[in-house]
Amino acid sequence: MAGAARTGEAGAAEDAQPPRRGRPRLEAPSPDFVARREEILSAAVEVFHVKGYDAGTLEDVAEALDLRRASLYYYVRSKAHLLYMIFERALDTALGKLEAYRAIEDPAARLDALIRHQVLMVANEPSLFTVFFDHRPRLNERYEEAIRSRERRYLSTIREVVNDALEAGALPGIEPRYATQAIMGMASWTYKWFDPERHNAEEFAETCSRLILRRRAGRGGTGRKKPRAG
Amino acid sequence: MAGAARTGEAGAAEDAQPPRRGRPRLEAPSPDFVARREEILSAAVEVFHVKGYDAGTLEDVAEALDLRRASLYYYVRSKAHLLYMIFERALDTALGKLEAYRAIEDPAARLDALIRHQVLMVANEPSLFTVFFDHRPRLNERYEEAIRSRERRYLSTIREVVNDALEAGALPGIEPRYATQAIMGMASWTYKWFDPERHNAEEFAETCSRLILRRRAGRGGTGRKKPRAG
Repeated sequence: MAGAARTGEAGAAEDAQPPRRGRPRLEAPSPDFVARREEILSAAVEVFHVKGYDAGTLEDVAEALDLRRASLYYYVRSKAHLLYMIFERALDTALGKLEAYRAIEDPAARLDALIRHQVLMVANEPSLFTVFFDHRPRLNERYEEAIRSRERRYLSTIREVVNDALEAGALPGIEPRYATQAIMGMASWTYKWFDPERHNAEEFAETCSRLILRRRAGRGGTGRKKPRAG
Repeated sequence: MAGAARTGEAGAAEDAQPPRRGRPRLEAPSPDFVARREEILSAAVEVFHVKGYDAGTLEDVAEALDLRRASLYYYVRSKAHLLYMIFERALDTALGKLEAYRAIEDPAARLDALIRHQVLMVANEPSLFTVFFDHRPRLNERYEEAIRSRERRYLSTIREVVNDALEAGALPGIEPRYATQAIMGMASWTYKWFDPERHNAEEFAETCSRLILRRRAGRGGTGRKKPRAG
């Protein structure tokens, strides 16, 4: 995307390959290596959250961990690669429990679980999802396809669940693609306003679920079409 | 906010004054002055949208208009001031028709109008609202209070309308502050995914309105509590 920071890494040949995670020379990185890289990712999330991707530097990340910048290159290839790994972490979180939710039998309860999943995930990791949502255009082209295909998988699962809820009569007559974006927006927007010291993520998830599914209180009951006056 | 770019402008005395718009020496800027400044704002919106606020420069804005950077200072005080004026423009758009919508008698129709307003406003000016939503933490402290108080006015109007819809039985039993954020999120998130070449803003607004108000088709009818199966 125009204006996205480009790092000096990579020639055309390397660009043609799919992105790999981790240290290039080893097949399976050691647990210590993985743990250290996770620490680096967490530090980078905070740096990019506070300073923004363009202004935040690898120097800032190294400093936050009391590491030399040169040591950082043992774990990450570049700033662009670091952003890519942050995006992978966000998508791991998003996709992690998806199959379990998908297995819920009742279509309204299934959508209810996904709404709660999206709200709680974003509310619980505000820095991670701020970087993910706001710095999406900064992702280097070479990583774009890998991230986009996982994003699509997530969105298409939600759309499928919205469709099932629609067919079961748990939603009004709506366009399922737009309804998916509406529900995702309602839940994801959390990162713009949610303050863990003043707000309650479970209560907000409950509000979203009642609005969308016209549910009564309680996680289990998904009493359809029973709006309750204020 | 930590890491926000600070410009070199302003001493403590000037900081203590409320922000003023326009050229300091004139009481009422000329129409030509205002028109030129609007052009500068529009160019700055595009620059900050594409490059981000940190990476975008006054030089970029001047270049987009074929102006010398020095000429820009006749219209804007600094990059921070430019961002503030962009935020003012976004809030002018948001608050502009608010009183008219507020005057709608039926509580459900009133909320319906506000949902559509928020969706269409964001969908019609994606660059303006991307800068507004994503660069909010970059706003200079000295402008923070002016912007925050107008934002609060907007949000509290929406909350009032949500409350009225709730009391009229057009919404399920929910927490009105959370419901307000849920509705704003659903509508505002548009700027993250909406593509004018592939999507239809009116149809998306219709989807949001039906989801929230369980309306049937048609702008006028706000048939409450009548979900229609897909």
